[in-house]
Amino acid sequence: MDHYLKLIGKVHSELRRLEDCPLLEHENAPEAAIEIFEEFRDAVKNIKPGDDIILLTWLHKADRTILTTRPRNNPGAAITGVFSTRSPDRPNPIGIHFVKIVSIAENNRFKVSGLEVLDGTPLIDIKPGLR
Amino acid sequence: MDHYLKLIGKVHSELRRLEDCPLLEHENAPEAAIEIFEEFRDAVKNIKPGDDIILLTWLHKADRTILTTRPRNNPGAAITGVFSTRSPDRPNPIGIHFVKIVSIAENNRFKVSGLEVLDGTPLIDIKPGLR
Repeated sequence: MDHYLKLIGKVHSELRRLEDCPLLEHENAPEAAIEIFEEFRDAVKNIKPGDDIILLTWLHKADRTILTTRPRNNPGAAITGVFSTRSPDRPNPIGIHFVKIVSIAENNRFKVSGLEVLDGTPLIDIKPGLR
Repeated sequence: MDHYLKLIGKVHSELRRLEDCPLLEHENAPEAAIEIFEEFRDAVKNIKPGDDIILLTWLHKADRTILTTRPRNNPGAAITGVFSTRSPDRPNPIGIHFVKIVSIAENNRFKVSGLEVLDGTPLIDIKPGLR
């Protein structure tokens, strides 16, 4: 089996620039919508408003060569391995987002709350919320 | 940026066959070890015993063409879109595992508790536990 990701959809958001993104999840993140591409629609047919889900995204603006970093909001802090941080800059820039389905919009889009990624960010998986 | 995953390490576990895998996380999962490949070691240098981490794995035995399924333990149940399930069979077979670092073993391996994946499963990311 290869290790090439299939892009299953994408995010529609008011967040257009990296500087607009909140530092922490749920920190003033605007409501966003997710679009599921036609060929994957069967896989979302049971998802409904009120569901808590885990979205996995591919943070396509990230730098995949970065292995160590400093906290973005604390430039004086010690350098840390990226696997101890939530920095998007890492070998595989996968984002994990715990969000709630707010409503089902037209064009097979789902409105979700609390999603802090850039407009156009690819989706790679959706899982049920853990509880 | 391409969408090809880098394999950052792999799992060493007593679980050798799919039939041996517990249905739910923490359900009798044995202690396992994760090995980080040499080129990614800088990225784990701050990880220490007691840390709660999120492991992302690539469930390499999965069927990536599956979009709908039935619960494994309830063959009479209705067919469900895979994005409402935790089935490994899905377009991108990424596993999310909430585990704890038990100890640091030789050969740059970390012993972890509660990891229910097959021996040899590739690792693709490590993130700090959410709280």
